[in-house]
Amino acid sequence: MSIIIKDVWIVSQDALRRQFKGSVYVEDEVIREVKQESIAVEAEYKINGEGKVLLPGLINTHTHIPMTLLRGYGDDMVLEEWLKTRIWPVEAKLDRESISAGTDLGLLEMILSGTTCFADMYFFEDMIAERTIKAGLRGFLGFSLIDFGTPEFKPEELFLECEKFIRRWKSKNSLVTPVLAPHSSYTCSPETLERCAEVSERHNVLVHTHCSETQHEVSDVQRRYGVRPVEQFKKTGLLNRKTILAHCGWITKGEVREIARAGAGVSHNPVSNMKLATGGFTPIPELVEVNATVGLGTDGAASNNTLDMFETMKFVALIHKHHRWDPCVTPAQQVLDFATIGGAKAFHMEDKLGSVEEGKLADLIILDFKKPHLKPCYDVVSHLVYAARGCDVYATIVNGKPLMIDRRVLTMNYEKVLWSAEEQGLRLTGE
Amino acid sequence: MSIIIKDVWIVSQDALRRQFKGSVYVEDEVIREVKQESIAVEAEYKINGEGKVLLPGLINTHTHIPMTLLRGYGDDMVLEEWLKTRIWPVEAKLDRESISAGTDLGLLEMILSGTTCFADMYFFEDMIAERTIKAGLRGFLGFSLIDFGTPEFKPEELFLECEKFIRRWKSKNSLVTPVLAPHSSYTCSPETLERCAEVSERHNVLVHTHCSETQHEVSDVQRRYGVRPVEQFKKTGLLNRKTILAHCGWITKGEVREIARAGAGVSHNPVSNMKLATGGFTPIPELVEVNATVGLGTDGAASNNTLDMFETMKFVALIHKHHRWDPCVTPAQQVLDFATIGGAKAFHMEDKLGSVEEGKLADLIILDFKKPHLKPCYDVVSHLVYAARGCDVYATIVNGKPLMIDRRVLTMNYEKVLWSAEEQGLRLTGE
Repeated sequence: MSIIIKDVWIVSQDALRRQFKGSVYVEDEVIREVKQESIAVEAEYKINGEGKVLLPGLINTHTHIPMTLLRGYGDDMVLEEWLKTRIWPVEAKLDRESISAGTDLGLLEMILSGTTCFADMYFFEDMIAERTIKAGLRGFLGFSLIDFGTPEFKPEELFLECEKFIRRWKSKNSLVTPVLAPHSSYTCSPETLERCAEVSERHNVLVHTHCSETQHEVSDVQRRYGVRPVEQFKKTGLLNRKTILAHCGWITKGEVREIARAGAGVSHNPVSNMKLATGGFTPIPELVEVNATVGLGTDGAASNNTLDMFETMKFVALIHKHHRWDPCVTPAQQVLDFATIGGAKAFHMEDKLGSVEEGKLADLIILDFKKPHLKPCYDVVSHLVYAARGCDVYATIVNGKPLMIDRRVLTMNYEKVLWSAEEQGLRLTGE
Repeated sequence: MSIIIKDVWIVSQDALRRQFKGSVYVEDEVIREVKQESIAVEAEYKINGEGKVLLPGLINTHTHIPMTLLRGYGDDMVLEEWLKTRIWPVEAKLDRESISAGTDLGLLEMILSGTTCFADMYFFEDMIAERTIKAGLRGFLGFSLIDFGTPEFKPEELFLECEKFIRRWKSKNSLVTPVLAPHSSYTCSPETLERCAEVSERHNVLVHTHCSETQHEVSDVQRRYGVRPVEQFKKTGLLNRKTILAHCGWITKGEVREIARAGAGVSHNPVSNMKLATGGFTPIPELVEVNATVGLGTDGAASNNTLDMFETMKFVALIHKHHRWDPCVTPAQQVLDFATIGGAKAFHMEDKLGSVEEGKLADLIILDFKKPHLKPCYDVVSHLVYAARGCDVYATIVNGKPLMIDRRVLTMNYEKVLWSAEEQGLRLTGE
């Protein structure tokens, strides 16, 4: 398969953060050419980039895709009440049909809003892998480990099934990478975490976990194990380059340094944190200062309530300025970096993903800038962070394959996905 | 002119906040019928509301429309530097052409994102009035008074021209209401403010002003006049039912009570406040507690960088939860109230605007809910605040006239507006 995009404004996100008008040629899975002049080549797909902006696809480093089915099912509630009366009763009823419907809905939303790659953490992860490949997105899919078991497996089955999952997906399809997802340091015993470290090491797979999302979690772990979550991960062998720590809302400056030293990635999820009022907030300026790896996440749509990474970028840029009483922190370019190359670094895929450069995997999005809310345009990056929305995405390309062109989704049955989501949503939440 | 909308989900925003499936019939400027059953009537425009949601048009209580031309022209900068190096040099060059182009761009963006009514405050307000009528929106248009004069008038001409402006627009066109807009208590002398109070009283017009946006402003007024801005407005006769106070980021609990007692309206502009990092924040829960009138605003696109009131609603809902560590404050219904009936109350138009009820002016918007990011739907109001975007608006109707149907704008030349905005933007900011 080949694609040529001509006369487009390219936000390369390369090391020099160069922007220029030019052409991009994609063949098979790879970006073959990026040029300021036109490229004389025939291709299966031809996209006229006039008035459009091309950039690397956005990377969502923390979400729970099937929970898209619970969008808006319980807002404005205290976390514990929300979990007890809404989320957990529904999660107990999950099955392959509902997981499939929720996953498809989330995948469709991501294609439409310019996310090309995501890190998931949920149950029935095999089903999520199958749907992800079918839709054509790139997924770092986390098999959930949690001491009291999952809707799918009993506690004693978890590690066995997890290793099966890893072996099954290790080299099966270039779109899916299996990930180990111990839920957190308050729901997984030290033994479970240690075993995760061992399995991660043995299979060379990433570990994706929740870390210091709430104050309650931090004090709980401290009370039970005498250390805070970051230290607990360190003690159990899980604070290293393979780890992605989601949230990190309640971490100290010392922990910021620990995380950076270990080379772990941080996934910042501002919209969910604000909606659930977790209080603490990922210390982004401090993390940047010590050159830590920062990616952005939406968290699940049950607590966001969208998967729109453009919205997340605006929240990131604004909340830190507001916190520090300083309009200069988290400038637009830095925020775009988090959402692209930062996410790629968190997955240790920065040589393959996160920028528009020859030889990299062709995960690209194109935005239509001929819109009133994107005019005039003095600075494209400013518009990408402060003015653009998911609905401005014109085309989404993953692994060299167009998933959407001119807002038409090519890999999914739009109507059927909406219909199944409604049906399964009602079934889960109704009597 | 007549419009019938059938089989639509109606979010009435009436006193009981009723929602139901039904039909709405509009004739001339007014909502004639709202019914749960179908209405047997012929109409010029027929809209099939299946899968759609109808609600009152959103009301933007604070903006500077022509500044849409400066969208993204200087972000991530300290307020003073931004004003001195970016905004003021450009404002000195403003003329009728640039004001017209900027206004049209803002009007077009509002039509496309579901805002039907707005309070403006800027220069060349006659031009803004003309463009507003042409586009068909409803404007409460503030003639700016500021002690050092405006790009249009010398200081000594201002009150004379302001009274002319008021007389000219008082009963000329039902879409435009003239408003007195003293810039603030730090840029207007006590004498100017007193004269504003007198003119407002004599002509019975609203007063729209900035109040306690920054800490610096509050201490400046306190140093010069011995009182804080709210008290300064009170002393000069400007704290009353006719007043709309934009921002109120740095007000005390005592001032909250003063504002409520006086019956003044507060315009809350979270996105701009966060972007400029003004630090303080409108104390919404306290204002609600004393039953004060609260509307929402985007502020100008130079500091937002959009005019999307759906985005503003999500920021409002989330920032207060985050501030209070309480996910229950600013629930979705309350935020939608601010953006509809709250704005109407700030203009003292709650008997005419802000809800879908028989006899009210027909300012309505219709959203297309057949979209992945609005599925499934357990609670329509949740989706309006937490998941919807301006781009989900299917139709915008103001004063009984459709301005947009099926995303096609009927009252403006889309291409020409974009082209003029680019041209004038370049002219203002270039050499």
